[in-house]
Amino acid sequence: MDKRPVGIFDSGIGGLTVLHEIGLLLPRENLVYLGDTARVPYGTKSTDTIIRYSVENTRFLMSKDVKAVVVACNTASAAAGDVLRKSFDVPILGVIEAGVEEAVGRSKSGKIGVIGTAGTIQSGKYEALLRGSGVTKIISAPCPLFVPLAEEGWTDNKVAEEVAKIYLEPFLNGAVDTLILGCTHYPLLEKIIGKVCGGGVALINSANAIARKLSDRLSASALQNDSGAGERKFYFTDSIERARAVGSRFLGENMDSRVQLADLSEFSRH
Amino acid sequence: MDKRPVGIFDSGIGGLTVLHEIGLLLPRENLVYLGDTARVPYGTKSTDTIIRYSVENTRFLMSKDVKAVVVACNTASAAAGDVLRKSFDVPILGVIEAGVEEAVGRSKSGKIGVIGTAGTIQSGKYEALLRGSGVTKIISAPCPLFVPLAEEGWTDNKVAEEVAKIYLEPFLNGAVDTLILGCTHYPLLEKIIGKVCGGGVALINSANAIARKLSDRLSASALQNDSGAGERKFYFTDSIERARAVGSRFLGENMDSRVQLADLSEFSRH
Repeated sequence: MDKRPVGIFDSGIGGLTVLHEIGLLLPRENLVYLGDTARVPYGTKSTDTIIRYSVENTRFLMSKDVKAVVVACNTASAAAGDVLRKSFDVPILGVIEAGVEEAVGRSKSGKIGVIGTAGTIQSGKYEALLRGSGVTKIISAPCPLFVPLAEEGWTDNKVAEEVAKIYLEPFLNGAVDTLILGCTHYPLLEKIIGKVCGGGVALINSANAIARKLSDRLSASALQNDSGAGERKFYFTDSIERARAVGSRFLGENMDSRVQLADLSEFSRH
Repeated sequence: MDKRPVGIFDSGIGGLTVLHEIGLLLPRENLVYLGDTARVPYGTKSTDTIIRYSVENTRFLMSKDVKAVVVACNTASAAAGDVLRKSFDVPILGVIEAGVEEAVGRSKSGKIGVIGTAGTIQSGKYEALLRGSGVTKIISAPCPLFVPLAEEGWTDNKVAEEVAKIYLEPFLNGAVDTLILGCTHYPLLEKIIGKVCGGGVALINSANAIARKLSDRLSASALQNDSGAGERKFYFTDSIERARAVGSRFLGENMDSRVQLADLSEFSRH
């Protein structure tokens, strides 16, 4: 019905895992991805700066005539989701809301944990949404070293296990039965996180949840595209060579010539 | 003689250790610091992006009428030092050159090691300068997790030691007698690096070296300021509250009301 693309943005390459899931569930949709690799990471920055960058990213996607925007970055979703919804007149979907819905549905004990970047946890957004869903037992903790560990490829060594043991200590021994992986990089550490947490804790990866939510939203608004094979375009604000090399690993397929450099300077109005 | 300030820029707060050393050696100089905390870190980004950011930072400092610029960030010094020297008509001093001079003077075996961010090591700048000084036995390695460890404050625990053992393995057993700490954050890990390397390896911290080099350069060009007490101003591109809190630890003094937000958007010409 509506051939305009869906826009997806992330602070870097991690959101490609979200694009991958969306592509599996909605193969006919055209997708435009923007990774703000020149300013990554967002997780250690202030709310004001994260909002400014998120607005610029969304303006860029709007210039590509998108019919909806998926905020694939948890930090941006937490800090800027509400501002974006007020500022732009297309549906804006955040990974945070999707992850919370999934977690609430899965938890039996009603004790839910959240891990994410410092920016995501400090925003209090996960806690607010969980409380709004009736959850009262919430434990959250920032895990700043998980992103550099995932990017270093140290996902299953002694260092990763030691770091996971320190960060995850508050979630052990029945403290929670569900743990939201509140950062697109964390699924790369899912094995070691699962090992440290033990079998009694369900790990929530928001990528699947946001894909389903997007599908529902497009159908409800009669915005879905029902014919043809979806095209994908990838934009990055830093070196496209590096993004192509590392990103293909996150995406699970080769991005080759569909990768372009994005210049955001014309979208940084004040 | 010349009351104009000296400009110092870094990708974040780490360069405050350099400002601190300059202040001790040149207490009469007025100093203006710019920390690009909204875009930190530079170490994982491409050379083109690092050059663009460094040019913008230098334009900002020039707008404050500086008489010289110290590039306190190793990554920026490696990637952009030569471009800055060609583009601006004030002396541009980089921490890299200062660290190399110090290391060459200290090494007895002529075997010198360098550790730094991925961007610094990939630039090959340290190796080129060391070779230019006649050093032929050079070992270099990126240590991406050292910056997040320093920022997390995990400078002396089991994780830090395990990470240091992995990264520093190529430098042990007499492989080098001098190791350049090629990142402003690494001196915070000096204790654990020294423990892993053992007593036979001299660790080079470039902050002292660059302060001495700046002093020589100002005297030689009759640019020094000989009277009054130097004033200091601090600018950051991200939240000044956060910079003030964390930065005071790096600086060793309270920055209080001398901290201001810097808007670089007017300096991002193309």
